[in-house]
Amino acid sequence: MNREELVSYIKQKKSFLCIGLDTDIEKIPRFLLDFPDPIFEFNKAIVEATHDLCVAYKPNIAFYEAMGPEGWISLEKTMEIIPSGLFTIADAKRGDIGNSSRYYAKTFFDRFGFDAVTLSPYMGEDSVAPFLEYSDKWVILLAITSNMGSRDFQLFPGKDSGSGEQLLYQEVLKRSCSWGNDGNTMYVVGATKSTYFESIRSIVPNHFLLVPGVGAQGGSLADLVEMGMNSDCGLLVNASRSIIYASNGKDFAIKAREAALELKLEMETHLNNHQ
Amino acid sequence: MNREELVSYIKQKKSFLCIGLDTDIEKIPRFLLDFPDPIFEFNKAIVEATHDLCVAYKPNIAFYEAMGPEGWISLEKTMEIIPSGLFTIADAKRGDIGNSSRYYAKTFFDRFGFDAVTLSPYMGEDSVAPFLEYSDKWVILLAITSNMGSRDFQLFPGKDSGSGEQLLYQEVLKRSCSWGNDGNTMYVVGATKSTYFESIRSIVPNHFLLVPGVGAQGGSLADLVEMGMNSDCGLLVNASRSIIYASNGKDFAIKAREAALELKLEMETHLNNHQ
Repeated sequence: MNREELVSYIKQKKSFLCIGLDTDIEKIPRFLLDFPDPIFEFNKAIVEATHDLCVAYKPNIAFYEAMGPEGWISLEKTMEIIPSGLFTIADAKRGDIGNSSRYYAKTFFDRFGFDAVTLSPYMGEDSVAPFLEYSDKWVILLAITSNMGSRDFQLFPGKDSGSGEQLLYQEVLKRSCSWGNDGNTMYVVGATKSTYFESIRSIVPNHFLLVPGVGAQGGSLADLVEMGMNSDCGLLVNASRSIIYASNGKDFAIKAREAALELKLEMETHLNNHQ
Repeated sequence: MNREELVSYIKQKKSFLCIGLDTDIEKIPRFLLDFPDPIFEFNKAIVEATHDLCVAYKPNIAFYEAMGPEGWISLEKTMEIIPSGLFTIADAKRGDIGNSSRYYAKTFFDRFGFDAVTLSPYMGEDSVAPFLEYSDKWVILLAITSNMGSRDFQLFPGKDSGSGEQLLYQEVLKRSCSWGNDGNTMYVVGATKSTYFESIRSIVPNHFLLVPGVGAQGGSLADLVEMGMNSDCGLLVNASRSIIYASNGKDFAIKAREAALELKLEMETHLNNHQ
Protein backbone atom coordinates (compact mmCIF):
# COMPACT_ATOMS: atom_id res chain seq x y z
CA MET A 1 0.00 0.00 0.00
CA ASN A 2 1.40 3.41 -0.89
CA ARG A 3 1.08 6.63 1.09
CA GLU A 4 -1.72 8.06 -1.02
CA GLU A 5 -3.84 4.97 -0.46
CA LEU A 6 -3.11 4.89 3.26
CA VAL A 7 -4.08 8.55 3.68
CA SER A 8 -7.21 7.98 1.64
CA TYR A 9 -8.30 5.04 3.84
CA ILE A 10 -7.69 7.14 6.96
CA LYS A 11 -9.92 9.89 5.57
CA GLN A 12 -12.63 7.52 4.37
CA LYS A 13 -12.80 5.58 7.61
CA LYS A 14 -12.12 8.58 9.84
CA SER A 15 -9.76 6.45 11.83
CA PHE A 16 -6.03 6.09 12.32
CA LEU A 17 -6.38 3.08 14.57
CA CYS A 18 -3.98 0.16 14.30
CA ILE A 19 -4.99 -2.96 16.19
CA GLY A 20 -2.14 -5.02 17.58
CA LEU A 21 -2.67 -8.74 17.15
CA ASP A 22 -0.53 -9.69 20.15
CA THR A 23 -2.31 -12.99 20.25
CA ASP A 24 -1.09 -14.84 23.31
CA ILE A 25 -2.17 -18.44 23.75
CA GLU A 26 -2.14 -17.87 27.52
CA LYS A 27 -4.54 -14.92 27.32
CA ILE A 28 -7.18 -15.79 24.75
CA PRO A 29 -10.57 -17.08 25.97
CA ARG A 30 -10.27 -20.68 27.12
CA PHE A 31 -13.11 -22.02 24.97
CA LEU A 32 -11.02 -21.27 21.86
CA LEU A 33 -8.54 -23.93 22.87
CA ASP A 34 -11.01 -26.56 21.58
CA PHE A 35 -10.52 -25.28 18.01
CA PRO A 36 -7.77 -26.84 15.85
CA ASP A 37 -6.03 -23.43 15.51
CA PRO A 38 -7.04 -21.25 18.49
CA ILE A 39 -4.71 -18.38 17.52
CA PHE A 40 -6.22 -18.09 14.06
CA GLU A 41 -9.77 -18.49 15.39
CA PHE A 42 -9.18 -15.62 17.81
CA ASN A 43 -7.66 -13.37 15.13
CA LYS A 44 -10.44 -14.14 12.69
CA ALA A 45 -13.11 -13.11 15.20
CA ILE A 46 -11.21 -9.93 16.11
CA VAL A 47 -10.68 -8.95 12.46
CA GLU A 48 -14.31 -9.64 11.54
CA ALA A 49 -15.48 -7.52 14.49
CA THR A 50 -13.15 -4.55 13.95
CA HIS A 51 -11.96 -4.17 10.35
CA ASP A 52 -14.34 -1.30 9.55
CA LEU A 53 -13.06 0.67 12.55
CA CYS A 54 -9.32 0.51 12.01
CA VAL A 55 -6.90 1.13 9.15
CA ALA A 56 -4.15 -1.29 10.16
CA TYR A 57 -3.39 -4.57 11.91
CA LYS A 58 -0.08 -5.28 13.57
CA PRO A 59 0.67 -8.89 14.50
CA ASN A 60 3.43 -9.06 17.11
CA ILE A 61 5.69 -11.73 15.66
CA ALA A 62 7.09 -12.80 19.06
CA PHE A 63 3.82 -14.53 19.93
CA TYR A 64 3.56 -16.46 16.65
CA GLU A 65 7.21 -17.47 16.63
CA ALA A 66 6.88 -18.87 20.15
CA MET A 67 4.28 -21.36 18.88
CA GLY A 68 6.84 -22.99 16.58
CA PRO A 69 6.04 -23.86 12.96
CA GLU A 70 2.30 -23.93 13.81
CA GLY A 71 2.50 -20.28 14.87
CA TRP A 72 3.70 -19.26 11.41
CA ILE A 73 0.81 -21.17 9.88
CA SER A 74 -1.61 -19.27 12.14
CA LEU A 75 0.04 -16.04 11.00
CA GLU A 76 -0.22 -17.01 7.32
CA LYS A 77 -3.91 -17.83 7.68
CA THR A 78 -4.52 -14.56 9.55
CA MET A 79 -2.91 -12.55 6.75
CA GLU A 80 -5.20 -14.29 4.25
CA ILE A 81 -8.40 -13.20 6.00
CA ILE A 82 -7.44 -9.55 6.61
CA PRO A 83 -9.53 -7.67 4.01
CA SER A 84 -7.76 -5.66 1.32
CA GLY A 85 -7.51 -1.98 2.11
CA LEU A 86 -6.05 -2.62 5.54
CA PHE A 87 -2.42 -1.77 6.17
CA THR A 88 -0.52 -4.69 7.69
CA ILE A 89 2.53 -4.38 9.92
CA ALA A 90 4.83 -7.21 10.97
CA ASP A 91 5.99 -6.09 14.39
CA ALA A 92 9.21 -8.04 14.16
CA LYS A 93 11.91 -5.55 15.22
CA ARG A 94 14.45 -7.26 13.02
CA GLY A 95 17.80 -5.80 11.93
CA ASP A 96 20.78 -7.65 10.50
CA ILE A 97 23.53 -7.30 7.89
CA GLY A 98 22.56 -6.91 4.25
CA ASN A 99 22.18 -10.50 3.10
CA SER A 100 20.27 -11.57 6.21
CA SER A 101 18.06 -8.48 5.99
CA ARG A 102 17.29 -9.38 2.40
CA TYR A 103 15.92 -12.68 3.70
CA TYR A 104 13.91 -11.04 6.45
CA ALA A 105 12.42 -8.73 3.79
CA LYS A 106 11.52 -11.75 1.65
CA THR A 107 9.84 -13.38 4.63
CA PHE A 108 7.60 -10.52 5.60
CA PHE A 109 6.98 -8.82 2.25
CA ASP A 110 7.01 -11.66 -0.30
CA ARG A 111 5.91 -14.66 1.68
CA PHE A 112 3.46 -13.15 4.16
CA GLY A 113 2.48 -10.08 2.12
CA PHE A 114 2.88 -7.50 4.88
CA ASP A 115 2.89 -3.82 3.92
CA ALA A 116 5.42 -2.91 6.58
CA VAL A 117 7.89 -4.34 9.06
CA THR A 118 9.35 -2.80 12.22
CA LEU A 119 13.16 -2.66 12.35
CA SER A 120 15.82 -1.73 14.88
CA PRO A 121 18.21 0.95 13.57
CA TYR A 122 21.28 -0.21 15.56
CA MET A 123 23.10 -1.82 12.60
CA GLY A 124 22.66 1.18 10.32
CA GLU A 125 21.76 1.90 6.73
CA ASP A 126 22.80 -1.32 5.00
CA SER A 127 20.67 -3.32 7.45
CA VAL A 128 17.60 -1.35 6.36
CA ALA A 129 18.31 -0.89 2.63
CA PRO A 130 17.05 -4.31 1.41
CA PHE A 131 13.59 -3.51 2.79
CA LEU A 132 13.51 -0.15 0.99
CA GLU A 133 14.03 -1.80 -2.40
CA TYR A 134 10.41 -2.95 -2.47
CA SER A 135 7.88 -0.57 -3.95
CA ASP A 136 4.74 0.18 -1.94
CA LYS A 137 6.28 -1.47 1.12
CA TRP A 138 7.36 0.28 4.30
CA VAL A 139 10.07 0.23 6.92
CA ILE A 140 9.05 1.30 10.41
CA LEU A 141 12.20 2.16 12.36
CA LEU A 142 12.36 2.23 16.13
CA ALA A 143 13.04 5.80 17.19
CA ILE A 144 11.87 6.12 20.77
CA THR A 145 9.98 3.31 22.40
CA SER A 146 7.49 3.30 25.25
CA ASN A 147 9.30 0.93 27.61
CA MET A 148 11.47 1.82 30.62
CA GLY A 149 14.63 0.64 28.84
CA SER A 150 14.16 3.27 26.11
CA ARG A 151 16.11 5.58 28.43
CA ASP A 152 19.19 3.39 28.39
CA PHE A 153 20.43 4.24 24.90
CA GLN A 154 17.75 6.11 22.94
CA LEU A 155 18.35 9.19 25.12
CA PHE A 156 22.14 8.83 25.01
CA PRO A 157 23.38 12.43 24.70
CA GLY A 158 25.73 13.06 21.81
CA LYS A 159 26.87 15.80 19.50
CA ASP A 160 25.21 16.91 16.32
CA SER A 161 27.19 17.85 13.22
CA GLY A 162 27.63 21.39 14.53
CA SER A 163 28.37 22.31 18.13
CA GLY A 164 24.97 21.38 19.51
CA GLU A 165 23.79 18.38 21.51
CA GLN A 166 21.43 15.75 20.35
CA LEU A 167 20.12 12.49 21.66
CA LEU A 168 20.56 9.16 19.90
CA TYR A 169 16.92 8.91 18.78
CA GLN A 170 17.28 12.34 17.13
CA GLU A 171 20.41 11.16 15.34
CA VAL A 172 18.46 8.07 14.22
CA LEU A 173 15.71 10.27 12.76
CA LYS A 174 18.13 12.70 11.09
CA ARG A 175 20.27 10.08 9.43
CA SER A 176 17.66 7.54 8.48
CA CYS A 177 15.08 9.92 7.02
CA SER A 178 17.23 10.25 3.91
CA TRP A 179 17.69 6.47 3.45
CA GLY A 180 14.18 6.30 2.10
CA ASN A 181 11.47 8.95 2.14
CA ASP A 182 8.13 9.72 3.79
CA GLY A 183 6.47 7.33 1.35
CA ASN A 184 8.34 4.23 2.55
CA THR A 185 9.59 4.99 6.05
CA MET A 186 7.76 5.48 9.33
CA TYR A 187 9.01 5.68 12.92
CA VAL A 188 7.95 4.01 16.15
CA VAL A 189 7.39 6.67 18.79
CA GLY A 190 6.10 5.67 22.21
CA ALA A 191 3.06 7.74 23.18
CA THR A 192 4.23 7.97 26.76
CA LYS A 193 7.02 10.13 25.37
CA SER A 194 4.75 12.91 24.12
CA THR A 195 7.20 15.54 25.38
CA TYR A 196 9.50 14.46 22.57
CA PHE A 197 7.03 15.06 19.75
CA GLU A 198 8.09 18.65 19.18
CA SER A 199 11.65 17.62 18.48
CA ILE A 200 10.48 14.65 16.38
CA ARG A 201 8.19 16.76 14.23
CA SER A 202 10.93 19.33 13.70
CA ILE A 203 13.10 16.58 12.17
CA VAL A 204 10.45 14.52 10.34
CA PRO A 205 7.41 16.79 9.84
CA ASN A 206 5.85 14.64 7.10
CA HIS A 207 6.64 11.07 8.10
CA PHE A 208 4.04 8.78 9.55
CA LEU A 209 4.62 7.79 13.18
CA LEU A 210 3.48 4.46 14.56
CA VAL A 211 2.51 5.14 18.13
CA PRO A 212 2.07 2.32 20.62
CA GLY A 213 1.32 3.09 24.21
CA VAL A 214 -2.20 4.46 23.97
CA GLY A 215 -4.57 2.41 26.09
CA ALA A 216 -3.03 -0.30 28.28
CA GLN A 217 0.39 1.39 28.22
CA GLY A 218 -1.27 4.71 29.04
CA GLY A 219 -0.68 7.73 26.75
CA SER A 220 -3.31 10.37 26.01
CA LEU A 221 -4.73 10.50 22.48
CA ALA A 222 -5.54 14.22 22.69
CA ASP A 223 -1.94 15.15 23.60
CA LEU A 224 -0.64 12.94 20.89
CA VAL A 225 -2.84 14.41 18.20
CA GLU A 226 -1.98 17.93 19.21
CA MET A 227 1.74 17.30 19.04
CA GLY A 228 2.05 14.67 16.34
CA MET A 229 -0.68 15.04 13.72
CA ASN A 230 0.19 16.56 10.35
CA SER A 231 -1.87 17.44 7.27
CA ASP A 232 -1.93 13.81 6.09
CA CYS A 233 -2.77 12.69 9.64
CA GLY A 234 0.74 11.25 9.93
CA LEU A 235 -0.17 8.97 12.81
CA LEU A 236 -1.04 5.34 13.21
CA VAL A 237 -2.01 4.77 16.80
CA ASN A 238 -1.78 1.22 18.00
CA ALA A 239 -3.82 -0.41 20.72
CA SER A 240 -3.41 -4.10 21.44
CA ARG A 241 -4.39 -5.50 24.80
CA SER A 242 -7.03 -2.85 25.60
CA ILE A 243 -8.95 -4.01 22.51
CA ILE A 244 -8.24 -7.68 21.93
CA TYR A 245 -8.43 -8.66 25.60
CA ALA A 246 -11.35 -6.37 26.49
CA SER A 247 -13.13 -9.55 27.57
CA ASN A 248 -11.93 -13.09 28.00
CA GLY A 249 -15.38 -14.62 27.69
CA LYS A 250 -17.48 -15.75 24.73
CA ASP A 251 -18.23 -12.07 24.05
CA PHE A 252 -14.56 -11.19 23.44
CA ALA A 253 -15.15 -10.06 19.84
CA ILE A 254 -18.15 -7.90 20.78
CA LYS A 255 -16.19 -6.27 23.59
CA ALA A 256 -13.18 -5.81 21.29
CA ARG A 257 -15.44 -3.98 18.84
CA GLU A 258 -16.75 -1.75 21.64
CA ALA A 259 -13.23 -0.85 22.75
CA ALA A 260 -12.12 -0.23 19.15
CA LEU A 261 -15.22 1.86 18.46
CA GLU A 262 -14.55 4.07 21.46
CA LEU A 263 -11.05 4.86 20.22
CA LYS A 264 -12.23 5.24 16.61
CA LEU A 265 -14.89 7.79 17.62
CA GLU A 266 -12.31 9.78 19.55
CA MET A 267 -10.06 9.69 16.48
CA GLU A 268 -12.94 10.78 14.24
CA THR A 269 -13.45 13.87 16.41
CA HIS A 270 -9.76 14.70 16.26
CA LEU A 271 -9.64 14.24 12.48
CA ASN A 272 -12.68 16.50 12.03
CA ASN A 273 -11.22 19.17 14.31
CA HIS A 274 -7.86 19.04 12.59
CA GLN A 275 -9.17 19.70 9.07
CA MET B 1 25.93 -24.57 28.95
CA ASN B 2 27.70 -22.55 31.64
CA ARG B 3 30.97 -20.66 31.33
CA GLU B 4 33.05 -23.31 33.04
CA GLU B 5 31.84 -25.95 30.60
CA LEU B 6 32.37 -23.71 27.59
CA VAL B 7 35.94 -22.89 28.64
CA SER B 8 36.62 -26.55 29.30
CA TYR B 9 35.42 -27.54 25.79
CA ILE B 10 37.61 -24.82 24.25
CA LYS B 11 40.64 -26.18 26.11
CA GLN B 12 39.88 -29.83 25.33
CA LYS B 13 39.27 -29.24 21.65
CA LYS B 14 41.89 -26.50 21.29
CA SER B 15 39.44 -24.54 19.26
CA PHE B 16 37.29 -21.45 19.66
CA LEU B 17 35.64 -21.87 16.30
CA CYS B 18 31.95 -21.18 15.83
CA ILE B 19 30.48 -22.34 12.53
CA GLY B 20 27.68 -20.20 11.16
CA LEU B 21 24.85 -22.25 9.69
CA ASP B 22 23.75 -19.51 7.28
CA THR B 23 22.06 -22.17 5.22
CA ASP B 24 20.74 -20.49 2.09
CA ILE B 25 18.54 -22.55 -0.21
CA GLU B 26 20.00 -20.58 -3.16
CA LYS B 27 23.59 -21.46 -2.27
CA ILE B 28 23.61 -25.10 -1.18
CA PRO B 29 24.71 -27.76 -3.70
CA ARG B 30 21.96 -28.36 -6.25
CA PHE B 31 21.83 -32.14 -5.79
CA LEU B 32 20.51 -31.61 -2.26
CA LEU B 33 17.29 -30.17 -3.65
CA ASP B 34 16.18 -33.75 -4.39
CA PHE B 35 15.99 -34.51 -0.66
CA PRO B 36 12.71 -33.88 1.17
CA ASP B 37 14.41 -31.33 3.49
CA PRO B 38 17.49 -29.93 1.69
CA ILE B 39 18.30 -27.40 4.44
CA PHE B 40 18.42 -30.09 7.10
CA GLU B 41 20.33 -32.48 4.84
CA PHE B 42 22.98 -29.81 4.26
CA ASN B 43 23.26 -28.93 7.96
CA LYS B 44 23.49 -32.59 8.95
CA ALA B 45 26.40 -33.19 6.58
CA ILE B 46 28.18 -30.02 7.77
CA VAL B 47 27.72 -30.88 11.45
CA GLU B 48 28.87 -34.50 10.96
CA ALA B 49 31.97 -33.27 9.12
CA THR B 50 32.98 -30.51 11.54
CA HIS B 51 31.69 -31.05 15.09
CA ASP B 52 35.05 -32.23 16.44
CA LEU B 53 36.76 -29.06 15.13
CA CYS B 54 34.47 -26.37 16.51
CA VAL B 55 32.93 -25.51 19.87
CA ALA B 56 29.78 -23.77 18.63
CA TYR B 57 27.20 -23.62 15.85
CA LYS B 58 25.30 -20.47 15.00
CA PRO B 59 22.24 -20.82 12.75
CA ASN B 60 21.32 -17.49 11.20
CA ILE B 61 17.59 -17.36 11.80
CA ALA B 62 16.90 -15.08 8.78
CA PHE B 63 17.48 -17.98 6.40
CA TYR B 64 15.21 -20.42 8.24
CA GLU B 65 12.44 -17.89 8.77
CA ALA B 66 12.41 -17.10 5.03
CA MET B 67 11.47 -20.72 4.30
CA GLY B 68 8.21 -20.33 6.20
CA PRO B 69 6.96 -22.97 8.66
CA GLU B 70 9.12 -25.61 6.92
CA GLY B 71 12.22 -23.57 7.73
CA TRP B 72 11.48 -23.78 11.44
CA ILE B 73 11.09 -27.53 11.12
CA SER B 74 14.51 -27.72 9.42
CA LEU B 75 15.93 -25.68 12.31
CA GLU B 76 14.30 -27.91 14.91
CA LYS B 77 15.71 -31.05 13.27
CA THR B 78 19.15 -29.42 13.00
CA MET B 79 19.16 -28.65 16.73
CA GLU B 80 18.34 -32.29 17.45
CA ILE B 81 21.39 -33.64 15.62
CA ILE B 82 23.96 -31.19 17.01
CA PRO B 83 25.90 -33.34 19.51
CA SER B 84 25.87 -32.38 23.18
CA GLY B 85 28.90 -30.41 24.27
CA LEU B 86 28.51 -27.91 21.45
CA PHE B 87 27.42 -24.38 22.28
CA THR B 88 24.46 -23.29 20.16
CA ILE B 89 23.67 -19.70 19.22
CA ALA B 90 20.44 -18.47 17.63
CA ASP B 91 21.63 -15.53 15.54
CA ALA B 92 18.27 -13.81 15.69
CA LYS B 93 19.12 -10.20 16.63
CA ARG B 94 15.80 -9.81 18.41
CA GLY B 95 14.90 -7.06 20.88
CA ASP B 96 11.45 -6.04 22.03
CA ILE B 97 9.57 -4.88 25.13
CA GLY B 98 9.44 -7.16 28.15
CA ASN B 99 6.46 -9.39 27.40
CA SER B 100 7.43 -9.92 23.76
CA SER B 101 11.03 -10.59 24.76
CA ARG B 102 9.78 -13.20 27.19
CA TYR B 103 8.19 -14.98 24.22
CA TYR B 104 11.33 -14.70 22.11
CA ALA B 105 13.26 -16.23 25.03
CA LYS B 106 10.75 -19.08 25.23
CA THR B 107 11.13 -19.69 21.51
CA PHE B 108 14.88 -19.95 21.41
CA PHE B 109 15.69 -21.33 24.87
CA ASP B 110 12.72 -23.56 25.74
CA ARG B 111 11.42 -24.69 22.39
CA PHE B 112 14.62 -24.95 20.33
CA GLY B 113 17.05 -25.49 23.21
CA PHE B 114 19.65 -22.92 22.15
CA ASP B 115 22.34 -21.93 24.66
CA ALA B 116 22.42 -18.33 23.48
CA VAL B 117 20.61 -15.77 21.38
CA THR B 118 21.90 -12.57 19.77
CA LEU B 119 20.01 -9.39 20.72
CA SER B 120 20.02 -5.75 19.70
CA PRO B 121 20.53 -3.39 22.67
CA TYR B 122 18.49 -0.47 21.27
CA MET B 123 15.44 -0.98 23.51
CA GLY B 124 17.48 -1.23 26.70
CA GLU B 125 17.58 -3.31 29.85
CA ASP B 126 13.97 -4.50 30.10
CA SER B 127 14.17 -5.87 26.56
CA VAL B 128 17.09 -8.08 27.59
CA ALA B 129 16.11 -9.01 31.16
CA PRO B 130 13.71 -11.88 30.30
CA PHE B 131 16.57 -13.73 28.58
CA LEU B 132 18.83 -13.34 31.62
CA GLU B 133 16.34 -15.08 33.89
CA TYR B 134 17.34 -18.47 32.46
CA SER B 135 20.21 -20.26 34.13
CA ASP B 136 23.02 -21.59 31.94
CA LYS B 137 21.68 -19.59 28.99
CA TRP B 138 23.34 -16.59 27.37
CA VAL B 139 22.54 -13.24 25.85
CA ILE B 140 24.87 -12.05 23.09
CA LEU B 141 24.40 -8.32 22.66
CA LEU B 142 25.37 -6.43 19.53
CA ALA B 143 28.17 -4.02 20.45
CA ILE B 144 30.00 -3.21 17.22
CA THR B 145 29.16 -5.08 14.07
CA SER B 146 31.25 -5.78 10.97
CA ASN B 147 29.00 -4.13 8.36
CA MET B 148 29.35 -0.68 6.81
CA GLY B 149 26.24 0.56 8.61
CA SER B 150 27.89 -0.04 11.98
CA ARG B 151 29.31 3.49 11.61
CA ASP B 152 25.90 5.11 11.46
CA PHE B 153 24.99 4.82 15.13
CA GLN B 154 27.40 2.49 16.93
CA LEU B 155 30.13 5.14 16.66
CA PHE B 156 27.78 8.01 17.59
CA PRO B 157 29.94 10.23 19.81
CA GLY B 158 28.42 11.04 23.17
CA LYS B 159 29.41 11.95 26.68
CA ASP B 160 30.33 9.60 29.47
CA SER B 161 29.19 10.15 33.05
CA GLY B 162 32.18 12.46 33.66
CA SER B 163 33.49 15.02 31.21
CA GLY B 164 34.92 12.56 28.71
CA GLU B 165 33.65 11.39 25.36
CA GLN B 166 32.48 7.96 24.50
CA LEU B 167 30.91 6.25 21.56
CA LEU B 168 27.54 4.52 21.66
CA TYR B 169 28.99 1.00 21.54
CA GLN B 170 31.11 1.86 24.60
CA GLU B 171 28.02 3.10 26.41
CA VAL B 172 26.29 -0.16 25.44
CA LEU B 173 29.14 -2.19 26.95
CA LYS B 174 29.35 -0.08 30.11
CA ARG B 175 25.65 -0.13 30.90
CA SER B 176 24.77 -3.63 29.85
CA CYS B 177 27.67 -5.45 31.49
CA SER B 178 25.96 -5.03 34.85
CA TRP B 179 22.57 -6.31 33.64
CA GLY B 180 23.96 -9.82 33.77
CA ASN B 181 27.54 -10.96 34.23
CA ASP B 182 30.38 -12.59 32.32
CA GLY B 183 28.70 -15.95 32.86
CA ASN B 184 25.54 -15.10 30.94
CA THR B 185 26.39 -12.19 28.63
CA MET B 186 28.64 -11.99 25.57
CA TYR B 187 29.08 -9.27 22.94
CA VAL B 188 29.16 -9.29 19.17
CA VAL B 189 32.31 -7.52 17.99
CA GLY B 190 33.11 -7.37 14.26
CA ALA B 191 36.65 -8.59 13.60
CA THR B 192 37.15 -5.91 10.97
CA LYS B 193 37.02 -3.49 13.87
CA SER B 194 40.15 -4.81 15.60
CA THR B 195 41.26 -1.25 16.37
CA TYR B 196 38.43 -1.09 18.88
CA PHE B 197 39.48 -4.13 20.89
CA GLU B 198 41.66 -2.17 23.31
CA SER B 199 38.72 -0.02 24.36
CA ILE B 200 36.40 -3.04 24.48
CA ARG B 201 38.76 -5.07 26.67
CA SER B 202 39.21 -2.11 29.04
CA ILE B 203 35.44 -2.13 29.64
CA VAL B 204 34.72 -5.88 29.56
CA PRO B 205 38.03 -7.69 30.20
CA ASN B 206 36.42 -11.01 31.14
CA HIS B 207 33.40 -11.30 28.88
CA PHE B 208 33.33 -13.61 25.91
CA LEU B 209 33.19 -11.87 22.54
CA LEU B 210 31.48 -13.44 19.54
CA VAL B 211 33.49 -12.32 16.54
CA PRO B 212 32.13 -12.61 13.02
CA GLY B 213 34.11 -11.29 10.12
CA VAL B 214 37.04 -13.71 10.04
CA GLY B 215 37.24 -15.41 6.68
CA ALA B 216 34.85 -14.22 3.96
CA GLN B 217 34.34 -10.84 5.67
CA GLY B 218 38.10 -10.53 6.07
CA GLY B 219 39.57 -9.97 9.55
CA SER B 220 42.90 -11.40 10.71
CA LEU B 221 42.84 -14.09 13.37
CA ALA B 222 46.31 -13.21 14.67
CA ASP B 223 45.38 -9.55 15.28
CA LEU B 224 42.18 -10.57 16.91
CA VAL B 225 43.83 -13.02 19.30
CA GLU B 226 46.48 -10.51 20.29
CA MET B 227 43.93 -7.85 21.12
CA GLY B 228 40.93 -9.84 22.28
CA MET B 229 41.97 -13.09 23.96
CA ASN B 230 41.85 -13.34 27.76
CA SER B 231 42.85 -16.05 30.23
CA ASP B 232 39.66 -18.04 29.56
CA CYS B 233 40.14 -17.53 25.81
CA GLY B 234 37.18 -15.13 25.84
CA LEU B 235 36.60 -15.43 22.12
CA LEU B 236 34.25 -17.35 19.89
CA VAL B 237 35.27 -16.69 16.31
CA ASN B 238 32.61 -17.32 13.74
CA ALA B 239 33.09 -18.34 10.14
CA SER B 240 30.11 -19.09 7.96
CA ARG B 241 30.40 -18.89 4.19
CA SER B 242 34.14 -19.63 4.02
CA ILE B 243 33.42 -23.02 5.62
CA ILE B 244 29.94 -24.11 4.63
CA TYR B 245 30.24 -22.99 1.00
CA ALA B 246 33.88 -24.04 0.52
CA SER B 247 32.56 -26.20 -2.34
CA ASN B 248 29.18 -26.40 -3.99
CA GLY B 249 29.72 -29.91 -5.34
CA LYS B 250 29.15 -33.37 -3.89
CA ASP B 251 32.33 -32.87 -1.83
CA PHE B 252 30.92 -29.86 0.09
CA ALA B 253 31.17 -31.54 3.49
CA ILE B 254 34.76 -32.69 2.88
CA LYS B 255 35.77 -29.21 1.76
CA ALA B 256 33.92 -27.67 4.71
CA ARG B 257 35.95 -29.90 7.01
CA GLU B 258 39.19 -28.83 5.33
CA ALA B 259 38.32 -25.14 5.71
CA ALA B 260 37.27 -25.65 9.36
CA LEU B 261 40.44 -27.67 10.08
CA GLU B 262 42.64 -24.91 8.73
CA LEU B 263 41.06 -22.35 11.07
CA LYS B 264 41.05 -24.80 13.98
CA LEU B 265 44.80 -25.50 13.59
CA GLU B 266 45.53 -21.78 13.54
CA MET B 267 43.43 -21.42 16.70
CA GLU B 268 45.27 -24.34 18.35
CA THR B 269 48.60 -22.56 17.77
CA HIS B 270 47.25 -19.35 19.25
CA LEU B 271 45.81 -21.15 22.28
CA ASN B 272 49.14 -22.94 22.90
CA ASN B 273 51.11 -19.69 22.56
CA HIS B 274 48.74 -17.82 24.85
CA GLN B 275 49.04 -20.20 27.82
